[in-house]
Amino acid sequence: MATYDYVRDGDEIYRRSFAIIRAEANLGRFRGVEERVAVRVIHACGMPDAADDLVFAEGAAQAGVEALAAGAPILCDAEMVARGVTRARLPAQNEVVCTLNDPAVADLAKARGLTRSAAAVDLWRERLGGSVVAIGNAPTTLFRLLEILADGAPMPACIVGMPVGFVGAAESKQALIAFPGSPHIAVRGRRGGSAMAAAAINALASAKE
Amino acid sequence: MATYDYVRDGDEIYRRSFAIIRAEANLGRFRGVEERVAVRVIHACGMPDAADDLVFAEGAAQAGVEALAAGAPILCDAEMVARGVTRARLPAQNEVVCTLNDPAVADLAKARGLTRSAAAVDLWRERLGGSVVAIGNAPTTLFRLLEILADGAPMPACIVGMPVGFVGAAESKQALIAFPGSPHIAVRGRRGGSAMAAAAINALASAKE
Repeated sequence: MATYDYVRDGDEIYRRSFAIIRAEANLGRFRGVEERVAVRVIHACGMPDAADDLVFAEGAAQAGVEALAAGAPILCDAEMVARGVTRARLPAQNEVVCTLNDPAVADLAKARGLTRSAAAVDLWRERLGGSVVAIGNAPTTLFRLLEILADGAPMPACIVGMPVGFVGAAESKQALIAFPGSPHIAVRGRRGGSAMAAAAINALASAKE
Repeated sequence: MATYDYVRDGDEIYRRSFAIIRAEANLGRFRGVEERVAVRVIHACGMPDAADDLVFAEGAAQAGVEALAAGAPILCDAEMVARGVTRARLPAQNEVVCTLNDPAVADLAKARGLTRSAAAVDLWRERLGGSVVAIGNAPTTLFRLLEILADGAPMPACIVGMPVGFVGAAESKQALIAFPGSPHIAVRGRRGGSAMAAAAINALASAKE
């Protein structure tokens, strides 16, 4: 069989990848778990300069680590995000929740004049307090979350805000960063996505590289 | 309830997003379905300059459209890719296959000295001919696919090659592009990922915007 010259060992691929990221990215302003999140987010997108757009609220990453260790659920805006969370890394068999395809969402969206992604957030409300939120797809999810938080819904322990795209993505992340007391981990600008959001969760979940 | 000023209508978000992409990205060298693929791939990553790294083999996109219309399976390297394929867009209720978590893969990987991602490809072999392949995660999957094609496995109708990362991603895509007769749609360099690969499939599956 024809062969190509490539690294075939999965652990070795991770080691080399993380070494390249640490050599190329500007990680000096991150400490401890923040550095771990930054490395995994960069790994997920292939772009060392994503580090420059990462924003951590003081203590948010550590709060995410502790919440997961204590068994907090992970509330995801999209099935792709939920699918990207590596179950073997979770410290407490944490529940990974995506309500987007809940049968109640379509009716709720129509009744409240929301996108389905936004309406799905309304179903998180009872579980928000102390949870870990992962938004990697829809800006409307993040805007809706901020609306219900402003309305008095309990604050999550950590909010990974990384919706991607051209309409509302940058603006929703800016609103998250500006929201008083929000424990955010965000990527400024248009970039983001399910893989980056899931990578941030995977970094919070375990120190294993 | 506090509200933010943002676009709440899903269809309108798509319309505005695609208009921004078409205004900002260099799409002049793409025709028909290629342009559609480019727009959706850019939409998935938030980066108009991804257009500059897109490579289409002559006729590959059209072959992908026709294969899907004829009922071809979609062979995915990762669950996130499979999850990103919008089932409602598929023209023939096409099967979306990911063998990564097949019980046979771990043993096969050990026996053949491969990553699990690469071993999973060996289970595609019987279904490769005329299929549509979507690789958005592991370079080893793409290298392994090229090895078994070089060994005489039947050629897919279309290969979406968009693994992401720092070790082997750029090299595997270069090898795909150089492979004689490969019907590829690839993104050169380190960028790529599940969302971009799924977006390419979603563009091939339907002309609906």
